[in-house]
Amino acid sequence: MKLIADNLRITRPEIRRALQRLDPEPVQDLVNACEARGAWAIDVNTGHLGKQAEPGMRFFMDAVQAATDLPLLIDTANPDAMAAGVKAAKNRIILNGFSLEPCKLERILPLARDYDADIVGFLLYPDSRVPTDAAQRFEVAMELMEAAEAAGVAKERVIIDPVIPPLAWAEGIIQAREVVKVIRTLPDLLGFPVKTIGGVSNLGTNAPDRAARRVIEQSYVAMLASAGLNFALLDILNPDLVEAARVSGILATENIFSWGMVS
Amino acid sequence: MKLIADNLRITRPEIRRALQRLDPEPVQDLVNACEARGAWAIDVNTGHLGKQAEPGMRFFMDAVQAATDLPLLIDTANPDAMAAGVKAAKNRIILNGFSLEPCKLERILPLARDYDADIVGFLLYPDSRVPTDAAQRFEVAMELMEAAEAAGVAKERVIIDPVIPPLAWAEGIIQAREVVKVIRTLPDLLGFPVKTIGGVSNLGTNAPDRAARRVIEQSYVAMLASAGLNFALLDILNPDLVEAARVSGILATENIFSWGMVS
Repeated sequence: MKLIADNLRITRPEIRRALQRLDPEPVQDLVNACEARGAWAIDVNTGHLGKQAEPGMRFFMDAVQAATDLPLLIDTANPDAMAAGVKAAKNRIILNGFSLEPCKLERILPLARDYDADIVGFLLYPDSRVPTDAAQRFEVAMELMEAAEAAGVAKERVIIDPVIPPLAWAEGIIQAREVVKVIRTLPDLLGFPVKTIGGVSNLGTNAPDRAARRVIEQSYVAMLASAGLNFALLDILNPDLVEAARVSGILATENIFSWGMVS
Repeated sequence: MKLIADNLRITRPEIRRALQRLDPEPVQDLVNACEARGAWAIDVNTGHLGKQAEPGMRFFMDAVQAATDLPLLIDTANPDAMAAGVKAAKNRIILNGFSLEPCKLERILPLARDYDADIVGFLLYPDSRVPTDAAQRFEVAMELMEAAEAAGVAKERVIIDPVIPPLAWAEGIIQAREVVKVIRTLPDLLGFPVKTIGGVSNLGTNAPDRAARRVIEQSYVAMLASAGLNFALLDILNPDLVEAARVSGILATENIFSWGMVS
């Protein structure tokens, strides 16, 4: 299980300010910290960026790529921003992402073909609704794969994100289990070793305290690893969570164990 | 997922001394501590007891039952000691346990029928060897169920223990995954909601330090919970592990969530 930092996001005040001031330093400090903690990749969550799509995305891509050679997930729902990010890419990139929403199919999915990049596919309905059980998610996954192949994107390029819900949602805990089930069974269902990604931080949205959130995330990340999750998108600056994710990944995938791998 | 304390075991020096002196106090202090930490049941691991089978087991059962009304697992491989434990029982008991070993089939399994008690069934070959993959474990599980029914013990009375291996064993990490798979798939395979139990402390045998053992046990107990384990036998006096097990059990089984269940 590879760990992707979800820390670089425009919702953080210092990152929003960095964009306003076109000051790369706060962005690079954060990226350096994420790399030092062992991130396999950095999710560059620029948000929508509105009319700033091109200069905004270029600022982020240039700032980040001057600090690291790690793979980058370009995380925006804005097709113009995504196109700008892809154009500015020097590092390996993963587009994050597309769904059955028409504008994503029309304007984001083709970028994965044109630039021969991996792309995250969200298990959401065309109107952005979240499916309510595993069976509905399987149907959406198959439609996503069909759409990808129709757009000239190989199915092996699509990384499925089954959309981990906040536990505080109605039925959130049931949906969180359905997500684990989808991750475990999707490769058999699709008939090839489809890769999966999950955003762990969603789960604890609105947690009343850090300790509760920590123990929930640590348990759930172990369940995800055991189900075969390939990429965990998480707070790489939380050492307890990272240790749990790393050790869970070892338990889930390694064939030779020594205590030196843990200590 | 119910949590069973594995703390009361004769391998602990103070418990061995308590038996030698016929002093119930150290036993009762330990039982009280386990109950205070939320144990659903206490595993009373008396060891073999040799020629002391009857008086030894009676000492333990009397000492424990004077301190608690919790269910008790009578944990011995000695049929004479098991018989003495069953006779001395006032609390709800679970026999821990039997296997395909001839002496267990002949002398321990019938006690479950005679006293109408649940009994743990270990997935081991008749010569005590450990099966080496999930398929072998399924075969043993079916043979255990057939043996139980032949002895007049309803299959619903048998709680399957797939025998969690020490990670430090050759292929221990692979077997640990096979055990998770067996727990998840056994109910479908046997065609009824068979209950399962696992001894979490086995996993970290010979761990070089407590921190490494803790993070391994916390991750693995979440994987067990996610697979549907019914009873986790563990160190109930380890608060981090108990919190992980409790929260994992919530994530694995509850249908309504509130943060108050965690904090």
